[in-house]
Amino acid sequence: MPDEEIKPQSDSQSDALSDRARLDWLRLIRSENVGPVVFRQLLERYGSPAKALEALPDLARRAGARRKIRLCPLAEAEAEAEAAAKAGVRLIALCEPAYPALLRALDDAPPLLCVLGDPAALALDSLGIVGARNASANGRRFAERLAADIAGAGLAVTSGMARGIDTAAHRGALPRATVAVLAGGVDIIYPPENDDLHAEIAENGAIISELPLGTVPQARHFPRRNRLISGLSLGVAVVEAAKRSGSLITARFAGDQGREVFAVPGSPLDPRAAGCNQLLRDGATLIESAADILAALTALRRLATPPPPSGSAGPAVAPPPEAAPAERADIEELLGADPILVDDLVRLSGLPIAVVHGVLLELELAGKVERHPGNRFARLYKAPADPL
Amino acid sequence: MPDEEIKPQSDSQSDALSDRARLDWLRLIRSENVGPVVFRQLLERYGSPAKALEALPDLARRAGARRKIRLCPLAEAEAEAEAAAKAGVRLIALCEPAYPALLRALDDAPPLLCVLGDPAALALDSLGIVGARNASANGRRFAERLAADIAGAGLAVTSGMARGIDTAAHRGALPRATVAVLAGGVDIIYPPENDDLHAEIAENGAIISELPLGTVPQARHFPRRNRLISGLSLGVAVVEAAKRSGSLITARFAGDQGREVFAVPGSPLDPRAAGCNQLLRDGATLIESAADILAALTALRRLATPPPPSGSAGPAVAPPPEAAPAERADIEELLGADPILVDDLVRLSGLPIAVVHGVLLELELAGKVERHPGNRFARLYKAPADPL
Repeated sequence: MPDEEIKPQSDSQSDALSDRARLDWLRLIRSENVGPVVFRQLLERYGSPAKALEALPDLARRAGARRKIRLCPLAEAEAEAEAAAKAGVRLIALCEPAYPALLRALDDAPPLLCVLGDPAALALDSLGIVGARNASANGRRFAERLAADIAGAGLAVTSGMARGIDTAAHRGALPRATVAVLAGGVDIIYPPENDDLHAEIAENGAIISELPLGTVPQARHFPRRNRLISGLSLGVAVVEAAKRSGSLITARFAGDQGREVFAVPGSPLDPRAAGCNQLLRDGATLIESAADILAALTALRRLATPPPPSGSAGPAVAPPPEAAPAERADIEELLGADPILVDDLVRLSGLPIAVVHGVLLELELAGKVERHPGNRFARLYKAPADPL
Repeated sequence: MPDEEIKPQSDSQSDALSDRARLDWLRLIRSENVGPVVFRQLLERYGSPAKALEALPDLARRAGARRKIRLCPLAEAEAEAEAAAKAGVRLIALCEPAYPALLRALDDAPPLLCVLGDPAALALDSLGIVGARNASANGRRFAERLAADIAGAGLAVTSGMARGIDTAAHRGALPRATVAVLAGGVDIIYPPENDDLHAEIAENGAIISELPLGTVPQARHFPRRNRLISGLSLGVAVVEAAKRSGSLITARFAGDQGREVFAVPGSPLDPRAAGCNQLLRDGATLIESAADILAALTALRRLATPPPPSGSAGPAVAPPPEAAPAERADIEELLGADPILVDDLVRLSGLPIAVVHGVLLELELAGKVERHPGNRFARLYKAPADPL
């Protein structure tokens, strides 16, 4: 299958995939127990999604999967691609030039993005603006003005199209470019009253998601969506946020991803300011206007160079030596319900890190372990969790 | 006059002055062109206020004063001391044990404090709470609650008895100890509606000033008063403050004096939050409650030891060699309307630093130069400014 091979290294950045190769990318990420990190590991190890798909059943079997791992059938991928084309949705792969450069730098960048609207919006420098759903009138007004000024300065405003601050941010940016990152499929309008906004963003900017068309957003999708808002952006501005709110999750992602965190201060008497004030205590940059953000980002943009296309394709590296049954058993025994660091697994097992990584990859594909933030793994005792 | 000598060094901290010695302290600080810094320099050089008073006319004459320097006559000092005693006001000198230790650490600590009420309030650890005169209802409520919690934790609340936040802070602290630092005499109630508050503070805490009884506060007195609010305190909390407000001057003093600066955040849409938000940008500690302050101060209090009684008395050091007329002329020529650093004067004149300091002291007493913050001096071309 030579035409499904991705061109190696230097060219992989500048060339779009063939339709056939794109279908393999789609099949691999829609296969059971394959998330973005596993996808990237498989791509690094096997050189192409097609070869990874061939290897998957064996990998899962080695880790003792109780039943055969479910690969996404070609027909299913074809149907998704066709529906996307019909809806005007592009599927952009991590290795393609249209893929947003800052997002590509994430370890768990989605291998494929569904994009409704103009992908050019994704090439602009972006600022995330997020905040409370039950925002105050003042908070909404502030977010709208902030977004208008940021968009006026030539940046895209990225948010989550939720009620409150998100909606105000998108509205403020329009008719300039704004990017909505959805927790469901790009064709699922939520909240329903935002149908006009959805249409306007698709017209003037872009609506994106890593999930298939038609996916109805579930609670567990929102935190994972938030990593994309920050991952697309040079920084994230939080306008109003309560303690323990989704906006703080986005801000934490931004910090972990090395992006700037901006927060709008507020009175201690207003519970909607508590999250922002907490961010300020933790070192976020205090902002009172777009000018404060632009001043900080000007410095960042001078520094920012597109990150290397790590993991985008490249030739296959030699697969690590297969673990001996005793070694595999040792690693499984070390895993429990509490997530454990990979480094600790290496230390405690005394095995080479490549062997540990290989066994973990197989266990993940077999649905027997779950990946946690910070390179930690826990054993799954029940039915395998949702693959995304 | 041996009985007016202050006991040297080790005892100077623990002994109260004799009435006669206190009159000399009063005479010296009430004499023309003698401010707190000059007072301390004279005390260091001559060992006692009495000897400094003897030396003053010569010092001023050497610098070419156009007329004889006005010394405060003994009778005038006696009258002030008598009026103070009659009003129940104590005059506490820098070298006395009742003088607040943190205030004593200032280069420009007042040599004498007028204290109405209970000087014991000055021995407590103190937090300054200041803010806008035209504070919002929420701001006042916040300040009152903050002060109540701080006072409940055993600290004195220090403020300026102005309208708005200051008043709320004093009220919140009562009936526990609170210290009001006035910009006029301790017997002058301003604003007039605070007559009840004035009486309650005098009853439960202390009202202090460096100015004589009966002094009506002038605009120029307020910034100098503010240095005492911060100087008395481990830290200063600013509750609501516009840009370029007196509260920011107090906060700047606190920073310069090495005290903690706390600021309450507020919405960028509220102009009364702009000053606090600016402080937060500049590194102030964000606070949302008294607990935040107490946590920060607990660490400070563990570290805080009373500063040494620098300049409080001690034996006279040998006066520096008198400057030659040519040297004096060189220094005068280097001085202009723009303040110049003493270090620059030393460098440009090529004269020993002791000589430069000596000439500057004389010029200040002669009303020919003015001391500026940061050890800088400017020539005075008009009539001498107000000696305070």
